Amino acid sequence: MQLYDCDYAPSPRRVRMFMAEKSLTADKIQIDLGKGEQFSDWYRDINPRCMVPALKLPNGLVICEVTPIWTYLEALQPEPPLLGTTAEEKAVIAMWERRMDLDGYIPAAEALRNAASAFAGHAVAGPHDYDQIPELAARGRARVQNFYADLNARLAESAYVAGAAFSAADITAIVTVQFAVNAVEIAVPDRLTALLRWHETISARPSIFA
Amino acid sequence: MQLYDCDYAPSPRRVRMFMAEKSLTADKIQIDLGKGEQFSDWYRDINPRCMVPALKLPNGLVICEVTPIWTYLEALQPEPPLLGTTAEEKAVIAMWERRMDLDGYIPAAEALRNAASAFAGHAVAGPHDYDQIPELAARGRARVQNFYADLNARLAESAYVAGAAFSAADITAIVTVQFAVNAVEIAVPDRLTALLRWHETISARPSIFA
Repeated sequence: MQLYDCDYAPSPRRVRMFMAEKSLTADKIQIDLGKGEQFSDWYRDINPRCMVPALKLPNGLVICEVTPIWTYLEALQPEPPLLGTTAEEKAVIAMWERRMDLDGYIPAAEALRNAASAFAGHAVAGPHDYDQIPELAARGRARVQNFYADLNARLAESAYVAGAAFSAADITAIVTVQFAVNAVEIAVPDRLTALLRWHETISARPSIFA
Repeated sequence: MQLYDCDYAPSPRRVRMFMAEKSLTADKIQIDLGKGEQFSDWYRDINPRCMVPALKLPNGLVICEVTPIWTYLEALQPEPPLLGTTAEEKAVIAMWERRMDLDGYIPAAEALRNAASAFAGHAVAGPHDYDQIPELAARGRARVQNFYADLNARLAESAYVAGAAFSAADITAIVTVQFAVNAVEIAVPDRLTALLRWHETISARPSIFA
């Protein structure tokens, strides 16, 4: 397998963590997003949406987007399960994962892409050009604050995001929190003790370095 | 099963079409989004994100969000498969479904929610209040135009969105197109003949009335 990757980007990190948890490996091909390599003709043939991650299978099939890649990898290597085993578990983990993505990851990305000069003219990831909207960057920051508070409330009643066990929902959550803290520079308030306790627990897993 | 639904909202329609394709039924409980019933205390206990659809199982478990509900229903009633049967099919359908959602559905919703007076102060679905951003409504409209063109290019080379067979990706796509046309008032240009041919094919399925 070949993973089209970018060391410093948060989306492919979700795949790298997932693979590390399952001891899966792939040849990693770095796409330098900062230099615009995702817009090259050869990469458009891999992923017309001009994004990483993308996973190329030995038979040539290319799977793009984080959650579809996870779906494939979970079937390839079911242990340890990160997407659930029963139908109910799968649905609950998918629900929490999506909440982390829609309420955390996407607003954090909006906050960064609509403010940082590196994204001028490219405020939306993908092949189409859109101008930045400063008000959307501000709204993204406000939404990340609400995301932190909501995640803290969840983690005050649940050891992990989707329940008693570590799952893919924790991967999206931790990558989102670290992206928001480090790249978007929105600190987690000290009062959110449940979130901070969970952050410490997840940070002790070897996959955090993937 | 109980489906928390809203007749005139596009998200629960994706679940209703999915159920119709599988001849599954549920008791439908209407949540009047226009009257703000999703913000009531009793509904917050069902879904703290204050959105429909939500599916309540006989054992009391509540599953929220379209794709997790689909995951559960596909396990409950595998035939006809709408999410794929092999690991590769599942990944490819999930990839195309997500593209329809991120590039079509979300921008169409942004276009509506950041412009229509009914959503003033509630520009983002969910429990938190955010002001409308007129520039985001305009950008959403531009993105829907690009979505139409990209979908047309895909359907010029593929009978259905994810390949040779009808799948859940077609459900998200047709609900998005009809939502964008009818609610956001962005017509599909006549030149997009592949999209229009596909629209006619999908519109002949009984599930379109779900």
